[in-house]
Amino acid sequence: WQNKGDLHNIRQVVFNNVAESLAAAKVLKEAGLRVVVLEARDRVGGRTYTGPEFQYVDLGGAYVGPTQNAILKLAKELGVQTYLINEKEKLIHYVKGKTYPFQGLFPPVWNPIAYLDYNNLWRTIDEMGEKIPAEAPWTAAQAVQWDNMSMKELFDKLCWTRLTRDFATLFINVNVTSEPHEVSALWFLWYIKQCGGTKRIFSTSNGGQERKFIGGSGQISERIAELLGSCVRLNEPVIKICQKDTAVFVETISGGKYEVINAVPPGLTMKVHYDPQLPSVRNQLIQRVPMGSIIKCMMYYKRPFWKEKDYCGTMMIEDEDSPISMTLDDTKPDGSYPCIMGFILARKPVHYEEKDWCGEQYSGGCYTAYFPPGTFCQFSRVLRQPFGRLFFAGTETATKWSGYMDGAVQAGERAAKEVGWDLHWQSEGCRFESHKIRPIKSTFWEKHLPSVPAFFTVLGVSTAFTAAVLGIVTLKKTSNVVLQ
Amino acid sequence: WQNKGDLHNIRQVVFNNVAESLAAAKVLKEAGLRVVVLEARDRVGGRTYTGPEFQYVDLGGAYVGPTQNAILKLAKELGVQTYLINEKEKLIHYVKGKTYPFQGLFPPVWNPIAYLDYNNLWRTIDEMGEKIPAEAPWTAAQAVQWDNMSMKELFDKLCWTRLTRDFATLFINVNVTSEPHEVSALWFLWYIKQCGGTKRIFSTSNGGQERKFIGGSGQISERIAELLGSCVRLNEPVIKICQKDTAVFVETISGGKYEVINAVPPGLTMKVHYDPQLPSVRNQLIQRVPMGSIIKCMMYYKRPFWKEKDYCGTMMIEDEDSPISMTLDDTKPDGSYPCIMGFILARKPVHYEEKDWCGEQYSGGCYTAYFPPGTFCQFSRVLRQPFGRLFFAGTETATKWSGYMDGAVQAGERAAKEVGWDLHWQSEGCRFESHKIRPIKSTFWEKHLPSVPAFFTVLGVSTAFTAAVLGIVTLKKTSNVVLQ
Repeated sequence: WQNKGDLHNIRQVVFNNVAESLAAAKVLKEAGLRVVVLEARDRVGGRTYTGPEFQYVDLGGAYVGPTQNAILKLAKELGVQTYLINEKEKLIHYVKGKTYPFQGLFPPVWNPIAYLDYNNLWRTIDEMGEKIPAEAPWTAAQAVQWDNMSMKELFDKLCWTRLTRDFATLFINVNVTSEPHEVSALWFLWYIKQCGGTKRIFSTSNGGQERKFIGGSGQISERIAELLGSCVRLNEPVIKICQKDTAVFVETISGGKYEVINAVPPGLTMKVHYDPQLPSVRNQLIQRVPMGSIIKCMMYYKRPFWKEKDYCGTMMIEDEDSPISMTLDDTKPDGSYPCIMGFILARKPVHYEEKDWCGEQYSGGCYTAYFPPGTFCQFSRVLRQPFGRLFFAGTETATKWSGYMDGAVQAGERAAKEVGWDLHWQSEGCRFESHKIRPIKSTFWEKHLPSVPAFFTVLGVSTAFTAAVLGIVTLKKTSNVVLQ
Repeated sequence: WQNKGDLHNIRQVVFNNVAESLAAAKVLKEAGLRVVVLEARDRVGGRTYTGPEFQYVDLGGAYVGPTQNAILKLAKELGVQTYLINEKEKLIHYVKGKTYPFQGLFPPVWNPIAYLDYNNLWRTIDEMGEKIPAEAPWTAAQAVQWDNMSMKELFDKLCWTRLTRDFATLFINVNVTSEPHEVSALWFLWYIKQCGGTKRIFSTSNGGQERKFIGGSGQISERIAELLGSCVRLNEPVIKICQKDTAVFVETISGGKYEVINAVPPGLTMKVHYDPQLPSVRNQLIQRVPMGSIIKCMMYYKRPFWKEKDYCGTMMIEDEDSPISMTLDDTKPDGSYPCIMGFILARKPVHYEEKDWCGEQYSGGCYTAYFPPGTFCQFSRVLRQPFGRLFFAGTETATKWSGYMDGAVQAGERAAKEVGWDLHWQSEGCRFESHKIRPIKSTFWEKHLPSVPAFFTVLGVSTAFTAAVLGIVTLKKTSNVVLQ
């Protein structure tokens, strides 16, 4: 590992159960190295999985969009094409039994106070994100303070109306498959920021859900696996990594033994026994990054009845009795197999598919790991830190679209780079030639409208009066929570 | 497993790296079953470890006290005796560079407003605890609400003075080796409750730190291991558990294969690969229970200089620059090897011992696992739930003194019981014959003094005025946090 020449003399072992290993393996093999991919499951693809039902169905990671250049470049190279998610007709905002059709990114808000509140929420999340460096979130000026509070606590401080608060909760549920009280504010703000902000991450058109792959996202991993051929070993969970002076030995559950280099995602590295032990901070890190919880469901219908009613299939659902918060049209690009992704009440569906990611021991859950309050600041700084000859990938270690397939590819390629070889790839990838990335813009009003408390101050309401109102609210909340 | 007769025909395999396995194994062996203990480390004892320095030194779990009947009974049976921790002289409360000697359980508070606040804090924690069933915390009326907030949030609501807030933080640090913002309020309130309340858990005399074992706590596991003889296999981390219709197969890293029953603590069961996979909820549970973070330090001195100054060696330290919050005298019972446990600034020590539990892959950390906000309600209900022929022990699964050696013994014995054999042990253990358990009492004033907001109301300060003051505080906090 002292010089590049060494690399040609040793076998490269890249393992674990996600697309990033394949991306790293591909890069390393193209550079002329010997590579082995040790896959825990009986299939490649990890948190992506394309089932065979109804031509094909993406039961795991599926969506891609503008600025996700790493995955888009890789897909193009492998000859996998994308198609646009249907968003021609109206979207639906469903709140407590009522349906509100709308068009645009976020559901419109008509109550002027609620609108100020709503506008201020998105603006503040994005402004706070701007203060968090994507590559080193622990260096933000307010890092410790923000990390020590949950998003629920931030919403307690930011949101003045119920409407905004409820939609903010849905925004967390949908983006990181967890609850506002479970996640560190620093982590969530960083997460939104490194995806390009509230609008980019949440949008279908011009955002994270703009497209899917024709034939399914599983093809990406399958095609790389084909290129790698016999280098990919299925059903080989790694159980032990032993680093000696002369080499690194990797042992699998079937008794296989391999030498050197690994790219492993965080939490699930608990499955491996280490000799020597991991450093203290990493040993504690890997216990603190649980995976989100999600069951992905598909409902197939004879006809796309929603389109006939001028709805595109997108629903944002605010209802405590509804197990899912968001749906999207999942009809095939040629219009066949009309389908809604997400759980909805049965309306004579012809077929139902679901995938419970929570039960997968080699995924742990989906989409991605989250950081509970108080953990991100301390542990994020070691996420990508190599331990001896052990290098770490996983979409969780990415600095752009972390949590997405794009982050997985970035992480895999970065890990391959760390092995010590300058592979001269085009780090930013290439863009869709057929597709313009539209920048995300804020309107004058979005930028300059006051927040709710600022609005009342502007109105000339005396501070004392406002304070009194707030004070009563505070007292009420305190007694409710503690003494009931 | 259909009837008791079966049990005699199969080999019992009890594993993992903590004292509870040994307790379970002992019980099962005494009942005439064949037992194997698979120990991941090169020693028994898990989170207890008695080193050989200065006669002996407890570098892990060490303290026992009244009501810990399971461990006390086991120790008595094994012939291991206890001695009292020195608390004859004054304790020290150290706040921001100043030393305040005191006697009694908690440091005294002289400011009357702060005293009301302080008194109200302990009272409220205990009252909330009374509403949480030790065996089924998720059934508490307020379970979800309390679980979704961190102890930091509860302190935000409860504490009106800085003094109380700071000591409350120390109380969390010392009892569960984590920070107020990291832990679920429901979990922490349950934890204190199942140890007998704020006074019992925090006290030296008549509390959790009353005694240590003469010769060290490690003897408990060592003596059981002696009784079990060759049944205990060291250096045998379990890597795979395969449950078939006919039997359960357990595989270790050295290639050993064993049949049937296991008692495993939570988080670290991530180290095992399961076939079939664990149920979804348990698969997610084991990613959500990180171990606390602690380094235990011992400083040895020529003379017990603190006693000469009329201090017993107990220090409660509130100072952000101090890495540890609590010290206790760790001198041997015969007065030899004067020693302070905990990190203190060097004053010509003759020897220094420390143990960093965070780096141990087969402990993960110490003393115990904690539950971040939002996890306890959902996941605590499956903590003790068997999966097929797999049973779960670990001090984390206990319902009394969970997190302590006592909870470990209770959990091990309970798991042994679940195997299906009525072993007729005395479930509540026996008490120290030489020692009276004094009940924990509250004084009239502790029960009836008002809280700070109630006091101001009593004083006749108008609600509007109080509210205005609070309101300003709220506004200030909001702007600080969000906009700075």
